[in-house]
Amino acid sequence: MLIDRFVQFLVPKDKKFFPLFEKASGNMVTTSRVLVELVKTTDAAKRKDLIKEIERLEHEGDSITHEIFHELSSTFITPFDREDIHYLATAIDDVVDFVYGASKRFDLYRIDKITEPVIRLAELIHTGSEELHTAIVELKNMKNITKIKEACVRVNSVENQADDVFNTAIAQLFDEEKDPIYIIKMKEILSVLETATDKCEDAANIISSLIVKAS
Amino acid sequence: MLIDRFVQFLVPKDKKFFPLFEKASGNMVTTSRVLVELVKTTDAAKRKDLIKEIERLEHEGDSITHEIFHELSSTFITPFDREDIHYLATAIDDVVDFVYGASKRFDLYRIDKITEPVIRLAELIHTGSEELHTAIVELKNMKNITKIKEACVRVNSVENQADDVFNTAIAQLFDEEKDPIYIIKMKEILSVLETATDKCEDAANIISSLIVKAS
Amino acid sequence: MLIDRFVQFLVPKDKKFFPLFEKASGNMVTTSRVLVELVKTTDAAKRKDLIKEIERLEHEGDSITHEIFHELSSTFITPFDREDIHYLATAIDDVVDFVYGASKRFDLYRIDKITEPVIRLAELIHTGSEELHTAIVELKNMKNITKIKEACVRVNSVENQADDVFNTAIAQLFDEEKDPIYIIKMKEILSVLETATDKCEDAANIISSLIVKAS
Repeated sequence: MLIDRFVQFLVPKDKKFFPLFEKASGNMVTTSRVLVELVKTTDAAKRKDLIKEIERLEHEGDSITHEIFHELSSTFITPFDREDIHYLATAIDDVVDFVYGASKRFDLYRIDKITEPVIRLAELIHTGSEELHTAIVELKNMKNITKIKEACVRVNSVENQADDVFNTAIAQLFDEEKDPIYIIKMKEILSVLETATDKCEDAANIISSLIVKAS
Repeated sequence: MLIDRFVQFLVPKDKKFFPLFEKASGNMVTTSRVLVELVKTTDAAKRKDLIKEIERLEHEGDSITHEIFHELSSTFITPFDREDIHYLATAIDDVVDFVYGASKRFDLYRIDKITEPVIRLAELIHTGSEELHTAIVELKNMKNITKIKEACVRVNSVENQADDVFNTAIAQLFDEEKDPIYIIKMKEILSVLETATDKCEDAANIISSLIVKAS
Repeated sequence: MLIDRFVQFLVPKDKKFFPLFEKASGNMVTTSRVLVELVKTTDAAKRKDLIKEIERLEHEGDSITHEIFHELSSTFITPFDREDIHYLATAIDDVVDFVYGASKRFDLYRIDKITEPVIRLAELIHTGSEELHTAIVELKNMKNITKIKEACVRVNSVENQADDVFNTAIAQLFDEEKDPIYIIKMKEILSVLETATDKCEDAANIISSLIVKAS
């Protein structure tokens, strides 16, 4: 055990966590890209397949998160504070969970027609995920701090835009819709999608604080 | 003060936390057993009494949680990472809170007829709580790691089953129910019960990581 | 860098965090006072202005929270555990967020008539915020522990009262209202306001544990 830890000490400390985080954020990008495809298709059979694909990616994301937590439990030296590693992995996992939660509801709630704000929110989640992935890839060498910072700023902007889309969509839903059951369903789907962008912002805030601590 | 801490250092370090955690998980088992009784009775007066009993158990659980936090604040040496103790106590407290939240809603929402998925979710919460209690009792001596691991795996399976029950119940609710007010009420009760099993899973995941760290 | 940290070490350690926390809790008091004004006015134009004012205060609160997190990332010595500073700042930020969330919904949901339980909950949030601010001002010198403890006890009592107001209001809403869309809107506003008092209680519990640790 002690020798194990000593060996770990000699291993460059970024060898374990960075590839796992890149895998996690890469999986988040893929999941959100499938979501965009899902909300843009009008083919019911294809939509069902894409929901299944997102479910598979969510399980994949779970495995990566557990791997990160397992490493965290058994590794003596970590490149960043253990807490920050925990929070960042959780935030990425949450983004994927909320994307899966939204896609599952299209099926559960028998949503046939997908509205414009839903498409816009899916696109914003995808943009936010890509920016986060860029930031995480750069974290490894820390050579280009400006690039990381700019990506994080863009994630914050994505969250602000998602807020606006969400608020406008909810006001419109209550103004125009008469069917309370449809309101219940659509309000929840919009809310789950908007929460995914909140989780992107959480991840960006953790990355920003990592840079402050490391500099 | 310093002498106090020195005395604490000499006290076997599991004397304080393990009995408190057993008390907390024992209280969670009792609370979930009363919930099962509550959802199975058709006697309105008895149901009211059982809701009161769950409220009492929730207050009892709160006291135990506060006792754990108080020990955590004042104890120098803890058997596990302080954070893990905090998270585990919080997860158990959350299970009891959500059980109380569901039971309270039967009363607030004037729910007379309890449906099959509600009964099934209550039973799953009870099973998950019993497995968690088994794992926590074993944590004390760490002699039977396999028994702890198996209990945690079963809690994860309980959560998966609860997910399926919840999803089927929600789809059925929207397919068959025409009254939006009943949908609002029942959807929320199902969701609160399902969240209780999520919190069981959170607790199991923390216990799993404790074992990895300690081995 | 190392010299920076050494200089920080010489700076009295409460010079940075206490003024920031007082700013944060002062901002929370102001925000909740504007909320009370908002729910009591019947002038639609004035209400719109007050919602804008709360939005401005929420952004102000965000800046203060970020400043606290930034200090936390870059400061070597902190007056309390880093975690506790993080949780306390987050809880205060959450109170302001939920107040903003409720006020925004009056506009989004086109709520014209504000009911008695909404006014009562706004007043309770304001009382809870004032008590928290008192406790935080006293934390600085720790001379009057009793005053801090008493303020925290009153915040807990505020949360209990808010629970009762909320439960009664929800039961009444379902008993008396026939319009499901109005129920959806009002139930959510009540729930957001009640959650703000939960966050006040979270903050009070963190302050209580700070006192235990420091004594």
